[in-house]
Formats: sequence, structure tokens, C-alpha cells
Amino acid sequence: MKKNINSILILNGPNLNLLGQREQQYYGNNTIEDLEKQCQKKCDEYSIRMKFEQSNSESDLIKWIQDAKEEYDAIIINAAAYTHTSIAIRDALLFYDKTIIEVHLSNIMARENFRHKSFISDIAMGVICGIGTQGYIAAIEALAKNILPIKHQ
Amino acid sequence: MKKNINSILILNGPNLNLLGQREQQYYGNNTIEDLEKQCQKKCDEYSIRMKFEQSNSESDLIKWIQDAKEEYDAIIINAAAYTHTSIAIRDALLFYDKTIIEVHLSNIMARENFRHKSFISDIAMGVICGIGTQGYIAAIEALAKNILPIKHQ
Amino acid sequence: MKKNINSILILNGPNLNLLGQREQQYYGNNTIEDLEKQCQKKCDEYSIRMKFEQSNSESDLIKWIQDAKEEYDAIIINAAAYTHTSIAIRDALLFYDKTIIEVHLSNIMARENFRHKSFISDIAMGVICGIGTQGYIAAIEALAKNILPIKHQ
Amino acid sequence: MKKNINSILILNGPNLNLLGQREQQYYGNNTIEDLEKQCQKKCDEYSIRMKFEQSNSESDLIKWIQDAKEEYDAIIINAAAYTHTSIAIRDALLFYDKTIIEVHLSNIMARENFRHKSFISDIAMGVICGIGTQGYIAAIEALAKNILPIKHQ
Amino acid sequence: MKKNINSILILNGPNLNLLGQREQQYYGNNTIEDLEKQCQKKCDEYSIRMKFEQSNSESDLIKWIQDAKEEYDAIIINAAAYTHTSIAIRDALLFYDKTIIEVHLSNIMARENFRHKSFISDIAMGVICGIGTQGYIAAIEALAKNILPIKHQ
Amino acid sequence: MKKNINSILILNGPNLNLLGQREQQYYGNNTIEDLEKQCQKKCDEYSIRMKFEQSNSESDLIKWIQDAKEEYDAIIINAAAYTHTSIAIRDALLFYDKTIIEVHLSNIMARENFRHKSFISDIAMGVICGIGTQGYIAAIEALAKNILPIKHQ
Amino acid sequence: MKKNINSILILNGPNLNLLGQREQQYYGNNTIEDLEKQCQKKCDEYSIRMKFEQSNSESDLIKWIQDAKEEYDAIIINAAAYTHTSIAIRDALLFYDKTIIEVHLSNIMARENFRHKSFISDIAMGVICGIGTQGYIAAIEALAKNILPIKHQ
Amino acid sequence: MKKNINSILILNGPNLNLLGQREQQYYGNNTIEDLEKQCQKKCDEYSIRMKFEQSNSESDLIKWIQDAKEEYDAIIINAAAYTHTSIAIRDALLFYDKTIIEVHLSNIMARENFRHKSFISDIAMGVICGIGTQGYIAAIEALAKNILPIKHQ
Amino acid sequence: MKKNINSILILNGPNLNLLGQREQQYYGNNTIEDLEKQCQKKCDEYSIRMKFEQSNSESDLIKWIQDAKEEYDAIIINAAAYTHTSIAIRDALLFYDKTIIEVHLSNIMARENFRHKSFISDIAMGVICGIGTQGYIAAIEALAKNILPIKHQ
Amino acid sequence: MKKNINSILILNGPNLNLLGQREQQYYGNNTIEDLEKQCQKKCDEYSIRMKFEQSNSESDLIKWIQDAKEEYDAIIINAAAYTHTSIAIRDALLFYDKTIIEVHLSNIMARENFRHKSFISDIAMGVICGIGTQGYIAAIEALAKNILPIKHQ
Amino acid sequence: MKKNINSILILNGPNLNLLGQREQQYYGNNTIEDLEKQCQKKCDEYSIRMKFEQSNSESDLIKWIQDAKEEYDAIIINAAAYTHTSIAIRDALLFYDKTIIEVHLSNIMARENFRHKSFISDIAMGVICGIGTQGYIAAIEALAKNILPIKHQ
Amino acid sequence: MKKNINSILILNGPNLNLLGQREQQYYGNNTIEDLEKQCQKKCDEYSIRMKFEQSNSESDLIKWIQDAKEEYDAIIINAAAYTHTSIAIRDALLFYDKTIIEVHLSNIMARENFRHKSFISDIAMGVICGIGTQGYIAAIEALAKNILPIKHQ
Repeated sequence: MKKNINSILILNGPNLNLLGQREQQYYGNNTIEDLEKQCQKKCDEYSIRMKFEQSNSESDLIKWIQDAKEEYDAIIINAAAYTHTSIAIRDALLFYDKTIIEVHLSNIMARENFRHKSFISDIAMGVICGIGTQGYIAAIEALAKNILPIKHQ
Repeated sequence: MKKNINSILILNGPNLNLLGQREQQYYGNNTIEDLEKQCQKKCDEYSIRMKFEQSNSESDLIKWIQDAKEEYDAIIINAAAYTHTSIAIRDALLFYDKTIIEVHLSNIMARENFRHKSFISDIAMGVICGIGTQGYIAAIEALAKNILPIKHQ
Repeated sequence: MKKNINSILILNGPNLNLLGQREQQYYGNNTIEDLEKQCQKKCDEYSIRMKFEQSNSESDLIKWIQDAKEEYDAIIINAAAYTHTSIAIRDALLFYDKTIIEVHLSNIMARENFRHKSFISDIAMGVICGIGTQGYIAAIEALAKNILPIKHQ
Repeated sequence: MKKNINSILILNGPNLNLLGQREQQYYGNNTIEDLEKQCQKKCDEYSIRMKFEQSNSESDLIKWIQDAKEEYDAIIINAAAYTHTSIAIRDALLFYDKTIIEVHLSNIMARENFRHKSFISDIAMGVICGIGTQGYIAAIEALAKNILPIKHQ
Repeated sequence: MKKNINSILILNGPNLNLLGQREQQYYGNNTIEDLEKQCQKKCDEYSIRMKFEQSNSESDLIKWIQDAKEEYDAIIINAAAYTHTSIAIRDALLFYDKTIIEVHLSNIMARENFRHKSFISDIAMGVICGIGTQGYIAAIEALAKNILPIKHQ
Repeated sequence: MKKNINSILILNGPNLNLLGQREQQYYGNNTIEDLEKQCQKKCDEYSIRMKFEQSNSESDLIKWIQDAKEEYDAIIINAAAYTHTSIAIRDALLFYDKTIIEVHLSNIMARENFRHKSFISDIAMGVICGIGTQGYIAAIEALAKNILPIKHQ
Repeated sequence: MKKNINSILILNGPNLNLLGQREQQYYGNNTIEDLEKQCQKKCDEYSIRMKFEQSNSESDLIKWIQDAKEEYDAIIINAAAYTHTSIAIRDALLFYDKTIIEVHLSNIMARENFRHKSFISDIAMGVICGIGTQGYIAAIEALAKNILPIKHQ
Repeated sequence: MKKNINSILILNGPNLNLLGQREQQYYGNNTIEDLEKQCQKKCDEYSIRMKFEQSNSESDLIKWIQDAKEEYDAIIINAAAYTHTSIAIRDALLFYDKTIIEVHLSNIMARENFRHKSFISDIAMGVICGIGTQGYIAAIEALAKNILPIKHQ
Repeated sequence: MKKNINSILILNGPNLNLLGQREQQYYGNNTIEDLEKQCQKKCDEYSIRMKFEQSNSESDLIKWIQDAKEEYDAIIINAAAYTHTSIAIRDALLFYDKTIIEVHLSNIMARENFRHKSFISDIAMGVICGIGTQGYIAAIEALAKNILPIKHQ
Repeated sequence: MKKNINSILILNGPNLNLLGQREQQYYGNNTIEDLEKQCQKKCDEYSIRMKFEQSNSESDLIKWIQDAKEEYDAIIINAAAYTHTSIAIRDALLFYDKTIIEVHLSNIMARENFRHKSFISDIAMGVICGIGTQGYIAAIEALAKNILPIKHQ
Repeated sequence: MKKNINSILILNGPNLNLLGQREQQYYGNNTIEDLEKQCQKKCDEYSIRMKFEQSNSESDLIKWIQDAKEEYDAIIINAAAYTHTSIAIRDALLFYDKTIIEVHLSNIMARENFRHKSFISDIAMGVICGIGTQGYIAAIEALAKNILPIKHQ
Repeated sequence: MKKNINSILILNGPNLNLLGQREQQYYGNNTIEDLEKQCQKKCDEYSIRMKFEQSNSESDLIKWIQDAKEEYDAIIINAAAYTHTSIAIRDALLFYDKTIIEVHLSNIMARENFRHKSFISDIAMGVICGIGTQGYIAAIEALAKNILPIKHQ
């Protein structure tokens, strides 16, 4: 049974505050603030309320997820390095228990082996990686269009 | 350095011909033909030439990839079960040597362990899974917007 | 709840067309055609409609399984080497979603390690191996007698 | 070179004495005694002398196998949990050195990982699992019809 | 839905008959009989009927568990070495299908690697280890207070 | 040689602040504050001074453990998700070097594989899991009764 | 005991039809047809009848191997990607049961880990890789000179 | 500090009662009784009191080891298959805590992989395998000559 | 091409604030402040500007590394327990992208297995461990003397 | 860019001095001296200067490789058992840094698992095994014909 | 078929020349020369010709084994550290192809994991470890008494 | 308890004689002789007697370590490739039983996986790698300043 998505929390993990400060030949001057604006604009298209946060601290991220339960219909999370190490964030997401989409700017499957393991993927609806900031936009679209997860077993 | 994407080949692997024949409560009556139409419409928005193919045969897929080198600027591939077993398709994609996006309807990271290994992911620009047919649309958007892969190491 | 088995599809994978061409001291002149006849005879005893196919091609097998959904109440499959490598055949069988029995002529557990892994066993009702062509007969009997799988968990 | 099977020992391991005391909706009231009768009836068809034993004790099973060398032409064994842990039973069967068929009521390949390893399979002629008590009947038939094991390497 | 615990079977595995015969500077003269008395006293506090058994034999333990199904509302089991090796005891406990608490006198997680694997833990309600005979008392209290297992997934 | 336990620090890791906010059918309205009160009451019985803390932050937990060395005779710790990932907490506990008991509300051995590894278990005196908040009470009792760890090797 | 080699079947697997279409700075304009001519010329030197085939289809390769049993004294096979995934080709080669030499253009041991496993190597007489098309010539010479495999164990 | 060995218990595990009943071309008619006599004779040379036991039952072996603590200065044990599976026998030997020598008739390191793991070796003084019944004699000599174990770390 | 090192950031991870509070017989009264002074003195010798920080918090360490990019020519890091668990610190160091030396007071290769894995070593110029606070001095000297990393592959 | 091969060093590792002393039915009386002559003859055809060495000593082989840097354009090496164990020989070959071909008389992939790992393969241009002394001749031919390695990734 | 042992070569690997120079409280002043004398004395009892060698050099040991083929009926080898690393010594012993007994002074199964793997054990008749120099004497006795290896499979 | 270091043996393993012959842009013309002089100079500062050796031969290194026991107070060892393969060198160092520091010119943790395992690290006081020849100087300083190893467990 479908349920409309009216509000989204977008969470960004450690080192994503650095966005736009390196490899500018690839991204131009796009910073984390620019990314927030792009997301805001896409959410506005669908009249979705959006909150956008970044922190290097595991406990900040846990706090935001805990608080989201009452406030947001879905979470888009790029947990960066914590994707691969934080069971505490996984546990907060298990408590959250609504729709989650996992996003990564780069293609983590083309990087070091220890980045192939995610503690989030199997409890998320879907995963989008390697298409840069466009991944966030695609995630918002998927939520806005009210996609239902495809279940197996 | 960027290069415009004017043509896209969309490939679908084994059993995807069954789309819409099961779990209709989730997808409605959407068949593989419906999916093709949605992709065509999105490509038309961006004036991108599109070809859409499905086969249960590994060698058909290899053939189409080999032939794509001269004809298409990018490949969107949902290799289904061959994702996890076909080095031959990987080799054809290595020969192709242009932009590739890997798509899966369901979240393969939430399924059996043997579906977590992909022979395509590390040579693709990005991977999108778990958001259903919307994944194809997101892939077309990413290509149309001329995303450059984020390189590491 | 039991449901009668009135029709069976018997599928044979790669190299099984060679049956009877080697190790005749063990099997006599029994060929794949002879095996088909033995199966036919046993099905006739129970008034079960039977189809018997063999192919070296993975996509032929996938096709037959897909088409079986409407036509046959059960599948007996000896996927031979594809047992250990084909997730695509597994996916077709997942789609089939009726009773499946896996058969092998030889005892695969007494052979190379890579033959101990089957992509079919855990989705089949049962597995019979090492008793030669008699395994097909035993599978037909089990289906004819309307065995229900023993569930766990 | 073939040799007629005139006598069979059927061995049942730990907890099989509970047969019929649970999940009666699947098996009816079939108890271990009922199973023994079914086997006796099938053996009578072929004029095969049969002995049927059950024990929860590893050493009882070892003793019966040791004594079988002079008395029985073949063993049908459902070692239940000992299948996966008892090298001592394997050693007794290595000493026995005649035809062995391994049977399991349920499909052990669809259960926990530790049930996928059998210390008996590679020294048995064949393995039958997942078709309930019919597996015993199929094993008797295979022996009665004087099947020769299919050798590899 | 809660159900009162009125009777408990306490089972002790191999070598626990030696309790109190070594390392007396730690335990004083506490023997297996002393432990039984302590448990009896705690059960009396809650008017719980108790049976206390020890054996070095795997089949004795299986027998007691099988028989407990009708007689006892819960089992407290210290299977000692069989914890790590006996699937047969696990199968009997699966058949038992009521509340089980696993107890160990010492902290098995601080010992050899092969003691870290338990065939009982994942089917027990809880595990208590490393607090000596007090572990039995804590298990009785937990049962007496009618704790419900905390479910996941 | 025994030493009396007069003071206990009870530490709770990430997401335990959510206690009582979900699955109320199991726990009633028991919150983290209720749990603290139960522990306080049990400590009062034994005239033990108690401090009870919870944090989602790894460094808070490290700080409390470091400071405990002079202030508390024992630590009861439910490190939640950090149990499985934090070597830093382990190192602080190694520095603490007094009696530690590890507690978990749920049975971690019945959950995902990555929860079976604990960085605390082998340096704790004992581990109690799966009996809910009663595990804290059992740990206090064990400390109050001045249990000595059972050494091996 | 030696037996003269009068006829050779040379098989080429998936993507080898692309030979000469890339990395021309290394190979010049050498295509698969050029390679066939070089092999033909070398076979002519030794009056060996030769057949040269390429296919992207696993079942084509299986078919050619099955048919070779009566027609050719030896097989030189470059199964390309199927080397690492096809047990079905292995099974056909086991049936073939005459002299086999495995060839690879590139040094597969210097590539990805999944290319280090070959389902052909242990049943071939020898393996030649990394010396380009010269590997085919070396294989023909070895066969022409009637090399006997060096046995171990 | 050395201590004289005046009494030895020699234990034999499952299937060793069959000694002399197979492979007589290797051992002649030597039975378990013959082996006992050879050991008795060697012990008599050194005026060592000896007890010699065999059982197929794990609990018998445990019982004998438990009782040996007061009665025998050393144990020579050929636990046969239980060597590789019984932690319960290991625990009894840990309790015994005097000199132990492990013996095997055959060279277990040249057999199946699962025979390479011994639960006894690391707590025994030494291991002798592959020299048949002479291994028992060598073990008695080593004990009689009052060898001290060579310690490491 | 060499570049002079004029400023160094020295970072210390969790629990290093405890330095000098334990095992004083080994280190005397050397505290973290003493270590800072020794480093300062050595840097003064070479007129290198130095900053010295310690924190138990992963995010503090990430912050300092991020800020160092503009401010310091090199980082000496003793990440303590985070060495083995923090990919987030690794990512910050990847962003830093200047010379890094990893230091440990103790020999981590002689401790528990989980301390043998470092997320820093392979992106550092070098690693110094086991020579106590002298390791920091050696690292400063190596940087002062303008060592160039020895590259491989 | 190609460079002519005018001189070759052929190195043979441990136990190859025994060539021709065993299994004469396979090789005739071919000794290591005969092999040297065959190689010499083939090199003469191409006017290539050749040196041929054998030693059982790892350091001899290292010395010859070190000295080859100035003297020889290519090395053909059959390191025999050192192939699988000597990183020191690998390091010398890394220093050598010119064309290397690895040769084995027998098919090492058909032998024990520990022979499947080579410390040389991934830094050699190619590998030839299982075609006996003909492998040396094929390697000389490949070098004489100035093959360029086929690069990947 | 038995064959008398008239001559034995006893080989000792690296660091065994140090025997008697450490841990004299255990061995007294027994040096490698003393060990040689004890072996000589035991061989004299049986009129067996004996040679006794020690070297720290792998190639010396290889040479002695190669030369032994014509000169000695059996080898007793304590390869010390080379036991675990030298495939070259294994290859020489494979060439030797007569009776081999492996001896170790200490119990290698009670030491570091990397000492549990032996490249000699599976090709030796038997293994004796942990009973000090008495192990050599036991090996000589076993050979003198003309033990035949117990075969399996 | 501290003990002054008055003499040091510096050992260099295989291929280190090549120092300065490659990658001169990094090291200038620094040869092994230059390194010896730098070490000599640093030792002179502290009036430490020094011996400096290099060999490609494992047995030379073993010999020098054995002889060092009486002659030198500490060993600095760069065993190069033998670090990862030689248990014989480890055994000699175990016999040496005084202070050892392990040095590597390059950062072995940033190279191939097989270089991450060292047979020396866990028995050395410390490890220094990746800071080139400065690593030797740092090791001498650490020894001269009489560092005591930091013990754990």
C-alpha cells in the first residue's frame, strides 16, 4: 500500500563538507551548499519539505536519524566512510523504519575492497552510486514518484 | 573533458522478458514493452537516439555490446543474473570502453550473497538499484546531463 | 494443502545428449532417448502428461522453464554443469514457483568441490543424485504420490 | 561387475524416533513404526531381507554398521544430525565398504549452512533428500534394481 | 503473549560432574550437588518445579530434552563441550520448541576460538556466561519473572 | 583474592536512549529512565553506589570509562552497536583493568553475523544477553555476590 | 605410449572475434582471420588437418567439442572468459578425453583474481599464456612433436 | 622437575575394535587383543602398571579419563575419529592435567583435510602417527624414559 | 622533487591522554604533556613549526586533518585504536594529500590480530612502531631530513 | 616500442639437475645437458647468445638474475619449487626489469594447490607449462620473434 | 611387499646445530653430537648403516636427499623451519621415493599456526613429534622393525 | 630492568646489495657501503661497536644471528624478502633472545599483500619502515637511548 512522501531528510557523513574543494576540474566550484540548493530546488518541484545536514560526527548522524522518525517520511543518506563501519547508524535506521535511499557520489564498487561492504544497503530501498550529485536528484525523484520497493523472499 | 551523449543502448538480460507477469500488485500491468516506452519518452526529451533490447542469451548480449562500439555513446545495462556470472559480458564491455551505467530493478544488496558480486560494477560509471523502472530513467538523466565519473586513485 | 500433479516437464542440461556414448560397461546402450522412454512409461502409469527436453544452451533451458509456468505442474531438472554456475536458470525457476525436483545421474558430492554448490537445491523440493537414471523415476514417483515438502524454520 | 542385493540394513539417527509427533498436518500420523512398515512392504516386493533401526546414540549406530559387514548387502542411512558431525560413523561406513545410500526426509541444502556438509555423501553411492519417507522407498528400489554407481575420476 | 513458567529442566553436559574437584581456591567445595541445591532453593522461592540432570553422554541429553516437551515449561542448559559440536542436541531443542536459556560457568568468549561457536545460542532466548553458578540463578530469575524474548527482524 | 564491590558504573551505548519507544507490546512503557530506576533499586539493596549513563557518542563512553578507574569498583556495559566496532572502547576498558560485565538486551547470537563479534567479551568477566533489562539486574547481583571469574589457561 | 597427431581442432571463445580491432599499435592489423591463416600454415608444415572456430556462444563451443571426439586428435582451446566460468565446457572436454592444450593471448595470471581460476587447466596437458598469437603456434608445435604429458601422482 | 611414570592408561576410540579384521595383508592377524599384549609386554619391561581400553562411545572415553586422574601417571590415547570432533574428550584431558601422548596408526596428515585438525594435539606432550602399532610402543618408551616436554613461549 | 618541511601537525587518538598514568615503571612519569615537550624541542632544533593535539573523538581528528591542508606540510599521526577501524580518518588523510607518518608507541604487530590491519599504513610514507615516544622523534627527524618516499609499482 | 632480443639467460631451479634420471619411459635419456643443447641449437638459429644455468640454491639464482641486468636481454626461468615460495627471486626479477618468460615442464595447475600460486607469473610476460622441454623452445621462439606483451589495465 | 632397511640417512635442518646450547635444565648438555651418538648406537643394535647430517642451508639438504636415492633405504628428517616453507625439499623427497619418517623435537601442533602446515607430512610414512631426541630413536626402531605404511584410499 | 646497548649487529637480506643501483633520482648514489658508513658514524656517536653484513643467502643470515648471541647486545635486521618467507631466520632470532629492531627501506604495508606478513615483527621490539636509510639511524638511536619495549598482555 502506497503512502505519499511529503518530507525528506538528507544526511551527509564525514568529509562531505569538503565537497568542491578538490578536483574542481571535475565538479567546477560546486560546494556542499550548492548541492543543498540543487536538492532544495528539486524538492520544491514536488512540494516536498526538505532538511539537509552534514556532520563528521557519528553521534550527530545518529541523533538526526532518531529525531527523523516523527518528522520525515524518508531519508536519503550518504554516510560516506561510516557506510562501511557504523553499525550504530544502521541501528538508528532500523529504528527509523521508513523509506531509506543510500547515495554515494563515486562508484564505491570500483574502489578498495573495504568500501564494498555497506551496513546500510540491505535495509535501504535502493542504492545509487557513481553519478555524482545527480544521485541525490534521482533519489528525490524516486521518492516523489512514490516508488515501492521490490521485495524478494 | 566532456563529450555529449547523443545515443544510448539499453540492454536487458535473462528473465526480464517476464516483467509485469508477476507481482502485478506492485507494478500494475507494466511490461517490458511499457518500460521501453518510458525510456523512449525520456530519451526523446533530450533528443537522444535509443535502442532497447532484451535476451535470455549471453551471446546475444555480447553481440549487441560489440556492435555498440561504433553506434552508441553509452550503454545502460541490466544484465540480471548474468551480472554475477558472466565474465564474457564484462570482456565485451571492456572492449566497448565508453560510458556504462548498471541498473537493477530490485536492491541486489538485500538479496542472496551471490548477488552482491557484480562483474560489471567496477567498470561502470555508476550503479543504480532498488528503485524499479525509475532506475532506467535516472540513468538516462545522468547521461543526458553529461555527468563525468568521479575518479579515485 | 495438496494439489495433484497432472503434468511434468523434464529438463536436461549440457552434455546429457552424450548419454550412452561413454562408459557403456556401466549403462549398456542406454541413450537419452531410452531415458525419455523410461520416464514416459512411468508417467503413463500415473496418467501424467510429460515433456522431455535436452539442450546445451542456457537460454533454451531458461525459455522452457518460463513457458512451463502455464503448462506444467512440476519440473524435474538435471541442469548438469549449469547447476553450479547458472543464476539465470535459478531466476527462471524462482519465477516458475511450483514444485521442482533436482536430479543428477552421478553423486555430485563425491566429485570436485565446485560441483558441491548448486544454485537450484535450496529452491527445489528435493534432490536425488547418484542412482543413475533411476533418479528420474524416483522423482516422478515422488511427484505422482503428491509428496509435500518438509518445511523448516 | 554387478552383485545382487538380497539384504538391506536401514539406519536412522538421532531424533528420528520423534517422527509423526510434530507437524502432523504434513505427515498425518505417520510414525517411525509406520515408516518401518512401508520399507518392509517394499522390500518384500523384491524378496529382500530388511532390518530397521533407530538410535539417538552415535555408538549404537557405529555398532550396527560394524556388524552389518557380514550380514547385509547394502545400508540405507539417515544419520540425521550425525551426518554433519560424526567422522566415527564415516569410519565405520568406510570399514563396511559395500553399497550405501544416504537419505534425508527434508532438503538439507535448503537449511542452515552447517547442514550442507555431510561426512557420508562422498562415500555413499547416492543421496536422496527432500521427498520425505518416499526417499527410503526410492533408495530400496534403486538397490533392488541393482544400480551401479556412476564413477568419476 | 506471556505464559507462566511453572516447571524447569536444568541440564548439564559432559565433565560438569567434576565441578568442585578442581580449582577449589576459587569455588570452595561447591560440587554439582551443591549447585543443584542452590537451584532448588531459588526455584522453591518461586514455587517452580525443577529437575536437575547431568550426563557425559550426548544421547542421554537428547533423551531428556525429548521427554521434556510434555513435562517442563523451560530448559536451562549448560551443554558444556557439546555446545560447540552437537547438532543432535540442537535438533532435540528445535523439537522442544519452548523457552531455552543457555548457561556457561566460564566466559567461553575468552577461551579458544572453537568455543565461540554455539549450536544452541541462536535458538535460545538468551545466553549467560562467565558469572559461575550465579548464571543458573540468574536464568531461573529471568524465567520466573516471565521475561519475553526481544525479537529482531 | 576477593575484593568487595561498593560502587558500579553502568554504561549504555548508542540508540539505547530509544528504549521503550518501540515494541511497547513487549516492554510496556519501560524507558531508559525506568531501567535506571530498577538498577538503582537493586544497588540500594546491596548498599552499592551506582552511576548510570547513556550516550550515542563513542568518545563520551571512552571518557566515562577512563574516569571510572578511580571512582568505581566495576563496570556493567551495554555498548550496543559499538560492541562490534569500537577498539577504542576496548582500549579504555583495558586501561580500566577492574571487573567488567557485558550486557545486551537482545540475544546478539541470534542476529546478523556481524553482531557475533564483540571487542569486549574476551576482556569482560562475563556476558549476559537476551533476557532484557533483567540482564542488568543479574549483573548487579553477580557483582554484589562477589563472584570471581573462572580462569582458563 | 605415443600416438601421432594428424588433426587438430582450434577453438576460440567469446570476444576473440574482435582481435585486431583494438590496440593495433601492439598487433598491427592482425585479425582472427590472420590468426587462422598463421595456424593453417604451421599445420601444413606438419601435414596436420586443422579446423579453426570462434563463437561467443557457450553452447556452440560445447557442440564443437562433442563432435571433435571422432574427428580430431587434439584440441587447442582459448576459451577466453568461459575459461573461468564454464563447467559445461569442462564437461565436454572431459568427454573428449584426448589431448588438450589451453592457450591465452594475454598473461591471465597478471590480471584480475577471478581470471586466475581456470576450469580447463587441470584437465589440459599444458597451458600457454602471455605470448600472443605465438601461443597457438607453440601449441601446434608441441602437438606435432608428439609431446607426452608429464604425469604427477 | 621430573616425576617417574609408574602407571599408564591406554585408550582407544571408535572402530579400533575392528583392528586386524581388514587389510590383513598389511598387519597380519594382529587384533586389538594382540596390540594390548604387545603394550603389556613393553610395560612389563619397565615395571609399569598398564590399563588398556577400547570403546566406540564418547562418554565411555570421557569416564575413563576422568577416573584416570587418581589412578594413572600418563595417558596414551588413540581417539580415532573423536580426535577431530570431540571437545568433550579434550575437556576431560584438560581436567586430567598430567602427561598425554597422542597416537594414530595411520598418518592422518596424509588423509582427508578434516583429519588434520586434532582437539588433542596441542594439549598433549607429543604426537606419533603413521608407524602402526609401533607408535604405542614408542609412546610407552618415551614415557618410561621420563621425557620432559619441550616448552615454547 | 623535494619540498622542505617547515610545519608539522602531530595527532594523537583515543586513550593517549592516559599516557604516563599506567605502567610507570616503564615510562617514569612521562605524560602526554611531556611527550609534547620532547616533540617541540626536536622541532625547534630544525626550526619547524609544530602543533600537537589529542582527542578521544573521531570527528575532532577528522576536523584537524581537514584544517591541516592549508596549515601544515606534514602530519605525524598516532591514531591509536582508530587506526584499525576508521575509514573516515583515512578519507580525511586522502584529502590532505601531503606527507604522513604513522606512529605507534607499542609494537602493534605483536598484539591482537585486529591490530595488524591499519587503514592508514598504505597511504602513509612510513610506519614506526614499538620504540615508544622515540618513534615521534624519529618521525620528526625523517621529515626534517626531507626523506622522499620509496615508491613501488 | 620493440627492441631486439640478442641474448637470453635460461635459469633452472632446484631438483632440475635430476632431469632424465627418472621416468625415462617418458623422456628417454634426456638430461639437463641435453636440454641445454636443444636450447643452444634453437638460439643459434636466431643468432642469440645464450647462457644456461641450474642450481638448487636460492642465492645462486638471485645472483645470476642480478648479474643479468647488464648482460642479457631476456630471462627464461623455470624456478621449480622456488616459483611458489621465493619472494627474494621475485625481487631480483623486479630489479632486472626486462622481458621474462616463466616455464614449467609439467602442468603445475594440475598438481597440488600450493603449486598454483606463483611469485613470478604476474611479473613475467608469459607462462608456458605442461609441454615438457618444448616449453623452453617455445619461449625462445617467442623472444626471437620479438613478441610484445599484451597489456591489460 | 616388505623390503629390509639396511641403511638410514638422518637429516637435520636449520638451527638444530644449536641443540644443547639453550634450556639446559631440560636437556642437560646434550648436543647435536650427542644426538648423533645415540642414533648411531641404536642403528648399531640393528646393524644398520647410518649417516647423520645437519645444515642451515636448504640447498645442502636438497643435495643430501638427491644423493640418498642410491645410498640409503630410508630417510629420517627433522627439517625444522624448512618443514613449513620448503617445497624444494619436498620435491627432492618426492624424487627420493623411498621410506621417509618426519621427526620434530617439540610438539609443533602446540606452537604457532604456521608450524601446523608441513610440506613433508603427507609424503612421509609417519610423523613423530614432541618426545625430544627419543623421536629419532623411535623412528629408527620403526624402520628396523620393517613397518609398512598404512594406506588409505 | 634496563641494560646498556654497547654493540649492535646490522643485518641486510637479499637484493639489498643492489642499493643505489636503481632509482638514483631518489637516493643519489647512496650504495650499501654508504649506508654502512652512515650507520658506523651514528654508532660512533654513542660509542657503540657495530658490525654490518649483507647476504642473499638465508643460511648466511642464520649463521650471523646464531653467532651474535655472545657478541652483540642488539640486532637491527632488514631481512628484505626473507621477512615474509623465512621461519628459519625467525627461529634463529628466537634463539638470539635479545633486543631486535626490524627495518625496511620502503613501506611494506603499501605493497603487495604477501609483504604484509612478517615472521619477524611479533618477536621484534619495534618495526620501522618507509623512511629509507633513515630507518637504520632511528633504530640505532632507539637502541642507544635504551628504549624498553612496551609490553601488552
